[in-house]
Amino acid sequence: MHILRVNTRTREARVAAVPPTWERLGGRGLIARILLDEVPPHADPLGPKNILIWAPGLLVGHMLSSCDRISIGGKSPLTGGVKESNAGGSTGLAVARLGLKALLLEDRPADDRWSVIVISPEGVRFDPADDLVGLGVYAAAERLRERYGKQAAISLIGPAGEMRLRAAGIQNLDRDGMPTRISARGGLGAVMGSKQVKAVVFLPDPKAKPPLADPAAFREAQKIYNKALLGHPQTKVYHDYGTAAMTSMTSHFGSLPTRGFSEGYFEGWESISGEALRERLLQRGKPSLPTHACMVGCAIQCSNVYATADGEILTSPLEYETIGLMGSNLGIDDLDTIARLNHEANDLGLDTIDTGAALGVAGRAGLLKWGDGEKALALMEEIRRGTALGRVLGSGAAIAGKVLGVEQVPAVKGQAMPAYEPRVIKGTGVTYATSPQGADHTAGLTIRAKVDHLNPEGQAALSRKVQISMAGYDTLGACIFAGFGFAAAPKDTIARLLRARYGWDDVDENILADLGRQTIMLEREFNRRAGFTPADDRLPEWMTRESVPPTGAVFDVPEKDLDTIFDR
Amino acid sequence: MHILRVNTRTREARVAAVPPTWERLGGRGLIARILLDEVPPHADPLGPKNILIWAPGLLVGHMLSSCDRISIGGKSPLTGGVKESNAGGSTGLAVARLGLKALLLEDRPADDRWSVIVISPEGVRFDPADDLVGLGVYAAAERLRERYGKQAAISLIGPAGEMRLRAAGIQNLDRDGMPTRISARGGLGAVMGSKQVKAVVFLPDPKAKPPLADPAAFREAQKIYNKALLGHPQTKVYHDYGTAAMTSMTSHFGSLPTRGFSEGYFEGWESISGEALRERLLQRGKPSLPTHACMVGCAIQCSNVYATADGEILTSPLEYETIGLMGSNLGIDDLDTIARLNHEANDLGLDTIDTGAALGVAGRAGLLKWGDGEKALALMEEIRRGTALGRVLGSGAAIAGKVLGVEQVPAVKGQAMPAYEPRVIKGTGVTYATSPQGADHTAGLTIRAKVDHLNPEGQAALSRKVQISMAGYDTLGACIFAGFGFAAAPKDTIARLLRARYGWDDVDENILADLGRQTIMLEREFNRRAGFTPADDRLPEWMTRESVPPTGAVFDVPEKDLDTIFDR
Repeated sequence: MHILRVNTRTREARVAAVPPTWERLGGRGLIARILLDEVPPHADPLGPKNILIWAPGLLVGHMLSSCDRISIGGKSPLTGGVKESNAGGSTGLAVARLGLKALLLEDRPADDRWSVIVISPEGVRFDPADDLVGLGVYAAAERLRERYGKQAAISLIGPAGEMRLRAAGIQNLDRDGMPTRISARGGLGAVMGSKQVKAVVFLPDPKAKPPLADPAAFREAQKIYNKALLGHPQTKVYHDYGTAAMTSMTSHFGSLPTRGFSEGYFEGWESISGEALRERLLQRGKPSLPTHACMVGCAIQCSNVYATADGEILTSPLEYETIGLMGSNLGIDDLDTIARLNHEANDLGLDTIDTGAALGVAGRAGLLKWGDGEKALALMEEIRRGTALGRVLGSGAAIAGKVLGVEQVPAVKGQAMPAYEPRVIKGTGVTYATSPQGADHTAGLTIRAKVDHLNPEGQAALSRKVQISMAGYDTLGACIFAGFGFAAAPKDTIARLLRARYGWDDVDENILADLGRQTIMLEREFNRRAGFTPADDRLPEWMTRESVPPTGAVFDVPEKDLDTIFDR
Repeated sequence: MHILRVNTRTREARVAAVPPTWERLGGRGLIARILLDEVPPHADPLGPKNILIWAPGLLVGHMLSSCDRISIGGKSPLTGGVKESNAGGSTGLAVARLGLKALLLEDRPADDRWSVIVISPEGVRFDPADDLVGLGVYAAAERLRERYGKQAAISLIGPAGEMRLRAAGIQNLDRDGMPTRISARGGLGAVMGSKQVKAVVFLPDPKAKPPLADPAAFREAQKIYNKALLGHPQTKVYHDYGTAAMTSMTSHFGSLPTRGFSEGYFEGWESISGEALRERLLQRGKPSLPTHACMVGCAIQCSNVYATADGEILTSPLEYETIGLMGSNLGIDDLDTIARLNHEANDLGLDTIDTGAALGVAGRAGLLKWGDGEKALALMEEIRRGTALGRVLGSGAAIAGKVLGVEQVPAVKGQAMPAYEPRVIKGTGVTYATSPQGADHTAGLTIRAKVDHLNPEGQAALSRKVQISMAGYDTLGACIFAGFGFAAAPKDTIARLLRARYGWDDVDENILADLGRQTIMLEREFNRRAGFTPADDRLPEWMTRESVPPTGAVFDVPEKDLDTIFDR
């Protein structure tokens, strides 16, 4: 495997050997290492010194179930710190099949030309993107697939990324070619926009496969893992209901963000639950699907395809986070409306979490009546038109709060909170506060732990443990749900896979935690150099003062617990 | 003297003794001390835990020429750090005559009522402000003066502060009752707005005077100071031309911010110079005045009164910073247009520096053609109407840049730069970078020093020296120009004044530097606790990369110099 560096100003591409300190990392961990090594900590995230990185995780490339994720990263224009955002779809597999440990997009064009970067075994090419600029993600993806073939893996941005809006993400195609697998968080779409790259097209030799040090051992470990994954009860739940299954759990705890994070219980939760979603999709029939895989070879298939009654596909999948942030958070109890909002966000290339949170801020500011889906859609249209209000909302919740004069913004390090009320699920609150990534549920969700979520004691220890595991999985390229399988499998399963893949005989059963800890330490070091301090490892102050009904909870995990979380 | 604490939620007022550690401080230094002692460093600046402080400087209360300034401070919603912003006018004298070492507005109302707080020897009263809400500063001041008398000293906010816009300041009346002496910087108007206080009215006994430990000695020292001040050549320059005299000097150096800080020389500078201004005001005659005192007893009288040809007073004074930020920075070479923009900013209660810089950002974003004064006025009207674009611009240059997608924002710690191009006047660039206040010329302007401003060497030492002096003057309540007098007077003049005022026999000729150093150390400590690091002591990265014509300079003072500036 090698490193591919593409300079977006000179349009030169260079292939380089993998530096020794990068070899044992992949995905999220490798991105942190590269940022530390190559991006000046004070660099403007949208300036020429930022680097946009694609790095498949260590296990990517062999269609191991739920383990072919692509990590995309750079210095975040939303947080000013380290950023990795991973997605399913076909990009991870394609990058690995091209033999790339990492792709680095460097510098920034001196002129205003937009490009499509095409990467194949023959080399790197810059194609003009004039006919694609301004197109939504769906239309652009369709045109790109016509031009580069149905087998192409593609990462692309929508109008939001072109406008350099800080809630913009980078979309990847799913196994059916739909551009809905988004590296959503932290504004990486704006970084890609700053480099004037509309799309990166990956054209690997379809027969290529990263080498295995011991193919038989790999297959054996794979079998063990698959068995554990398929046997796990959560696999069945996610298979049937997708992430939307979470709606009922968060409602039960009083932790479903409602009306701008002012409440934790939404009276209309049942009509936006996983059960309601499954029922609707089954009732509508194809192209709607309650169960769908985003990656080839995935056994969980937590995704879904949501189409209108007329058969127009709106999104795949409609996920819990979107249901929370664009549903209950806006007082909207209608799945069709939520799916339309989701479609708009996807087509613009926006993170539904930060955009939904920004719409919630607009609600707090009196610009949106709770439950008014048409107005919410009209606000999405403002973003598309690039009006001042649209740019405010597309800049994410934190900036929207500052501009619109709303104090109660649910964000940490400038990044909006996902749909788990942190005053109630306090371990997840600790994750939001202390993750180097900013508020992010995939960095360490604690809601499944059998603890009293309202009790501040012990939440930091719980969050630390989960954060370390998650950082490990993100470095492996494993989906958050692959963890069910690894947790149920024999302890040395990951080590066996890595030994079989790379021949690393010294890897033992602690490898997941080792990778996770190392990743978080690298990330914290980058953030430290970029100017982060313990003051940034806090929930917004209002959440320590204003209680959330119906539990009446405030966030009261001691600051000392937050400050010492990674000390051991 | 005592401390007056007014709780804006409970409407209770408490008089307290001055704590020993506060005794030897005033103005800016006292504000830093109070913030450290009483405001949690992570407090939301617009939340209930921030405190809005009025603190006259140590020498205030005796009509010592140019030494009756009021410092207003709190945690800044613009920078997130310590903030002191001082102004002339009548407020300082009135607060001192009320016997107040400091006034602290605490907490925040639980309802939506707006108040006028009236402070007199009889006590503190909350009057309803319903008829004032929404009024511009000029109309509100007029109504307040009708209600509370022509002798009232008043601090008030305009619509911008009511809207909690982060470029909002707090206006004070000048000696003629015009509300144009603004504690402009850092968003303190938004803090006052968050506490729903439209105005604070100070009604001292006009015969009251702070006590003097040795009146004869005070008068003697005062004479020495006055003589030195009046004899200084700069006093004459500022008397005749006001701060606008600076236009020709910055033009000469290529350091006059032009068209969004993209150039340092403005071809139309002569028509917006101090000479052109004086000529126009003389030609128009009263009410226009080229020379005018903002405080009773001032010998310099650097202010002016700018009226239209029809005799309508637009502003007093039209200052150099406004000419730079709302003139050359927008490509506008017409003084009448600049004065109208200034009037709008004043009436809205906005800092002309941050607002002018935000308009420059709008220019960079293509929303304003350089030189189009009518469009600039239309954008000010957007702020008044509270449109999304207006709120973006009223949030200051840094937020405007993020929302509008402009990288080249002239700001440090979120606060916009005054009209001295820091790539050219590098010592002032060091001040912008390292002042705990954010980019601020009054924190340490170096343009008068006889050095090669383009040479990065030695600039940190120069900036340190001036920053320390300025922090000292701000703690004394002395105008930046009073420094000319003190610098020319015998070295122990300030010490003599303080000994005669307070009986502090241990004060020696190093007192100015002692006060300044102590103030900056307190401020840096507050910022450190609030999460500031050396990463915040930087000019924006683009200024280290993009050169400014005609000098072709970039900011190249070594980061090590910035990091060690206050080490000794």
